[in-house]
Amino acid sequence: MTVAEFQKLIRDIYYDKDSRRGSDGTFRWLVEETGELARAVRRQDRANLEEEFADVFAWLASLASLQDVDLEAAIAKYARGCPKCHSTPCRCVEPQPASPGCAKGGNQA
Amino acid sequence: MTVAEFQKLIRDIYYDKDSRRGSDGTFRWLVEETGELARAVRRQDRANLEEEFADVFAWLASLASLQDVDLEAAIAKYARGCPKCHSTPCRCVEPQPASPGCAKGGNQA
Repeated sequence: MTVAEFQKLIRDIYYDKDSRRGSDGTFRWLVEETGELARAVRRQDRANLEEEFADVFAWLASLASLQDVDLEAAIAKYARGCPKCHSTPCRCVEPQPASPGCAKGGNQA
Repeated sequence: MTVAEFQKLIRDIYYDKDSRRGSDGTFRWLVEETGELARAVRRQDRANLEEEFADVFAWLASLASLQDVDLEAAIAKYARGCPKCHSTPCRCVEPQPASPGCAKGGNQA
């Protein structure tokens, strides 16, 4: 299924409800489902994990439709490799998160 | 582009970095980008909005690859309409969020 077909599928099923709820309420659902995905990753329940990925993607598609964003057009930025270094695989240097010690005053440094 | 092609594209670009970082760090990136999407929705900067949708989708694809989940297979649950009511459009009754008054002891009720 293309990304555009998935966005249309979700629009056909949910757009009426999504538009009545609006973008803020739909964003709240996206975050709620992202939380369920976090739990599924932690628990490693395979069937539930697959469901939660699908649900987060579906809420992202709902929000995109409410915001008049074409997801398939949007992802074109990745078509020629990493949008920053233009390479496949990406060669960008990833910044490392600061250690908790640094953020909390150095008592764990 | 199919959903499977997009997941493979993101895997080709980022899997090495994603696997070194691991699922927890990749989940953190997904949440960080979801926050940037929230800001883009609030500011309604069209170009940035499109970018942020693409980025959230890319991080979701990265996490799916790390978790050995095939996104295209996962979304099959939506192929025949709403997975709960089996209708298009969805006929499920959406629960309404409790009012802040209820949650905080009724002083706004």
